[in-house]
Amino acid sequence: MTECFAAHRRVARDLGVDAVALVPGSNFERLFKKGFHTNERPLVVLIPVEGAPAALVPNLELASFALISFDGEVFDWYDQTGYADAFAALAAHMPIRSVAVEGQVMRVFVHHAMATAWVGLRIVDAERQISGLRLCKSLEEIAALEEAIRISEVALEDVLAEVKPGLTEAEVERRLISSLFTRGADEQAFGAIVAAGENSARPHATARADYRIRTGDALLLDFGARKSGLCADITRTVFIGHATDEAQAVYEAVLKANVAGHAATRSGATAHDVDDAVISVLEASPFADRIRTKTGHGLGRDVHEAPYIMRGNHQVLEPGMVFTIEPGLYRVAADGFGVRIEDDVVVTDTGCRSLTTSPKTLRIVG
Amino acid sequence: MTECFAAHRRVARDLGVDAVALVPGSNFERLFKKGFHTNERPLVVLIPVEGAPAALVPNLELASFALISFDGEVFDWYDQTGYADAFAALAAHMPIRSVAVEGQVMRVFVHHAMATAWVGLRIVDAERQISGLRLCKSLEEIAALEEAIRISEVALEDVLAEVKPGLTEAEVERRLISSLFTRGADEQAFGAIVAAGENSARPHATARADYRIRTGDALLLDFGARKSGLCADITRTVFIGHATDEAQAVYEAVLKANVAGHAATRSGATAHDVDDAVISVLEASPFADRIRTKTGHGLGRDVHEAPYIMRGNHQVLEPGMVFTIEPGLYRVAADGFGVRIEDDVVVTDTGCRSLTTSPKTLRIVG
Repeated sequence: MTECFAAHRRVARDLGVDAVALVPGSNFERLFKKGFHTNERPLVVLIPVEGAPAALVPNLELASFALISFDGEVFDWYDQTGYADAFAALAAHMPIRSVAVEGQVMRVFVHHAMATAWVGLRIVDAERQISGLRLCKSLEEIAALEEAIRISEVALEDVLAEVKPGLTEAEVERRLISSLFTRGADEQAFGAIVAAGENSARPHATARADYRIRTGDALLLDFGARKSGLCADITRTVFIGHATDEAQAVYEAVLKANVAGHAATRSGATAHDVDDAVISVLEASPFADRIRTKTGHGLGRDVHEAPYIMRGNHQVLEPGMVFTIEPGLYRVAADGFGVRIEDDVVVTDTGCRSLTTSPKTLRIVG
Repeated sequence: MTECFAAHRRVARDLGVDAVALVPGSNFERLFKKGFHTNERPLVVLIPVEGAPAALVPNLELASFALISFDGEVFDWYDQTGYADAFAALAAHMPIRSVAVEGQVMRVFVHHAMATAWVGLRIVDAERQISGLRLCKSLEEIAALEEAIRISEVALEDVLAEVKPGLTEAEVERRLISSLFTRGADEQAFGAIVAAGENSARPHATARADYRIRTGDALLLDFGARKSGLCADITRTVFIGHATDEAQAVYEAVLKANVAGHAATRSGATAHDVDDAVISVLEASPFADRIRTKTGHGLGRDVHEAPYIMRGNHQVLEPGMVFTIEPGLYRVAADGFGVRIEDDVVVTDTGCRSLTTSPKTLRIVG
């Protein structure tokens, strides 16, 4: 398995550090084809610029760890005695002076344990470089994404067929999630957002158990299945019974921005270009003061990952990159509401292909 | 809301630091009665030993953040411009020299942002002290736990009625999760473990899509609903069609250890005492070489939290503490298997009360 580490060794070399440290999470799962529940128990794999890797593993995970055919030294530790001695033994075995870590995955207690075991260790946040290895998706990953999205879209139809005034947001959310699993999800990609009326104006709203959906409400559903480790992320906003003139005008502006995002996406364009195309449409609408978010984010094993689709990010898009296009407009007020239309797209040689296929024309349900 | 911070101010004072920093997670949710999706976006609340708190919040979360009636200064930031300036402004506003953080929740990129904004800042891992404020559960929290456990136990019966040889582990897992949501779960408390045959010997096994359950297999189900923010965590091990003599003997040893754990749990005993009572039973059995884990862990808003029930932890048990009693025996081999029986208990004035009520006698299904 040593050859699999070539890309990580290159990251370390480019950063001028002695090793890369991986902890369980998306980068770890992609590399080793296996995830771990770890919680309060540190598990770290160290990949040095040269030579064999090494790992620190909770003793009770050794049987699971054996499944990944790791060909380096393993230092295990027991709950009863703690992990400090195992870190010290690992440090003696691999006396590095600097290390690149995943800053958005590794937690402070592991950072502190490493800083204690290797005195003077320089710990570099290389989230961008390490997770950057996952930027362009393999055909296998694209297939898993398509399956996750297909499951999500079927679940959406299941629940929209049942939505009616009088149901609470929480009830709609529960039906949606149950359908995701019935339709074949391995997990939810993230906690689903089901928000009606004024709650839809909060981009990351929490479903309320005490709010019953009413005629005239916007109903925003933002959710996704995870399948074979890959995440779907789709948002549709529908209206209950009827949509006001204001709602229709806002919806048209968001849809126009969404379409502009698809049109601007192609190999060679930048993340900035796509966001600029999308946000420019919203800025030119009568609703510019309702803009709250950038266009989107990369999507893969993490539901939020690079490339982040925003002005100022001059990352060049390449075939195989996958991200969301999710313009929205949000008016926070007692009679306010929000509209978001989110697709998942993959960059191709000639442009982009939408992985989401649910209809986007304004939809009245219930 | 300032008065709610008294306990956090005391933690800071006891540690001799200037403030406590909270990031979204269980401590945050308990304090503010609200969670946040944050992912790559830092959100930090600083509670100083004296004076008003302050917060750093992503701009797109401001409308959600407004729901918590925070009465301190808020520094917001946009995706397009990043969070460094907001951290610097927060540092100028609150010039602390040391801070206590949740080491198992805060990630390295936030640690680095703070170390950059406050030059020379001493960052202390106070996971134990901050999360320690959640050790004794309120009556409201106990009620939510009981509801989460009730949902989980009903889902268990749903799925055990359907289990039969020929189903894959992954199929059983999917039915279990779907039932959890149908029965009223808000979320899964953690990724369910459904493991049959030799896979049951891995304490944290992953369900296989390509392994069909066979007659004679052990089938271990470890899972739980989350309800109103509180987590159930229950394990039952059943046998398909029949149980071998070895399986019956192992099961009896584990059940005896589980019962010993209940008997040893009372206010005034220590976490060490409970683990010692449980592990001693397993050590005295013919299967001592199959011990892999400690007795259990605290349970609440996190599925793994203090008190950790293990030898050497002399934490005194108090009424209102909730934890798992989950002895297990695991033999890793082609014909190996594992047995675990996990209950959730609350310490009372006079002993303990089991929140789980599913039968524990050896059960043959399918």
